Amino acid sequence: MELALQEARAAARRGEVPVGAVVVAPDGRVVAKAGNRTRELNDPTAHAEILALRTACTALGSERLPGHDLYVTLEPCPMCAAAISFARIRRLYYGASDPKSGGVAHGARVFSHAQCHHAPEIYDGIGAEDAARLLREFFAARRPDE
Amino acid sequence: MELALQEARAAARRGEVPVGAVVVAPDGRVVAKAGNRTRELNDPTAHAEILALRTACTALGSERLPGHDLYVTLEPCPMCAAAISFARIRRLYYGASDPKSGGVAHGARVFSHAQCHHAPEIYDGIGAEDAARLLREFFAARRPDE
Repeated sequence: MELALQEARAAARRGEVPVGAVVVAPDGRVVAKAGNRTRELNDPTAHAEILALRTACTALGSERLPGHDLYVTLEPCPMCAAAISFARIRRLYYGASDPKSGGVAHGARVFSHAQCHHAPEIYDGIGAEDAARLLREFFAARRPDE
Repeated sequence: MELALQEARAAARRGEVPVGAVVVAPDGRVVAKAGNRTRELNDPTAHAEILALRTACTALGSERLPGHDLYVTLEPCPMCAAAISFARIRRLYYGASDPKSGGVAHGARVFSHAQCHHAPEIYDGIGAEDAARLLREFFAARRPDE
């Protein structure tokens, strides 16, 4: 999770919402890491999780990552949660809860429906305080009137 | 929708699940079209909708597509539904219903939660029979034992 937080901090420095994600292989090797790049890439799908999953899939030459784990600093949105399911991620570790836009423990609860054909094991609250502080500081600096 | 069906047929010829999507600008111009390419690209996020949205955003140099409409031959999954929301698509036209994996009218119902900050107008059942037949024929040919 420390690597994911580093990616989130790097995203903040680029002016992106600070979220970071890391994909870890069954043998513990880091196979992909990414921070949010939606603004830089003009791509609404360029969330940290999506970029990390795509990089890992390219590296492995497979659209599935069985046995792989994903670490992400924020509760995934519905888009990322569904992508995590499609990639057959084994364990999802995430940091801060996201009541406003999350799709795992809130709202769409993507893994909690019969239409979801693979759900990872989920471990939440990992490094949550650091991840939440990064987001608070980012938005406080961006929106001084709030 | 006929263009989206052509993309779906082309996907089937490539051995991909036959789904196609088209993004149309406010002036009626087609700005992006794509078929599913998850196998070819080893990318679980390479659904037709995601590819079409990314292409349109790149063409426009923006991560949002206000006033644009998306035509897709199948009910979007939760990943694509959330991406459609992020891209601020105005109207979503889709063909066949997808009770097994859909995320608009089934399961996660991504647009139906407070955590979804933009929902398009939705028009379903457009060209549904053609889209559904394509999918049936594809899976019948792939899984002759079913």
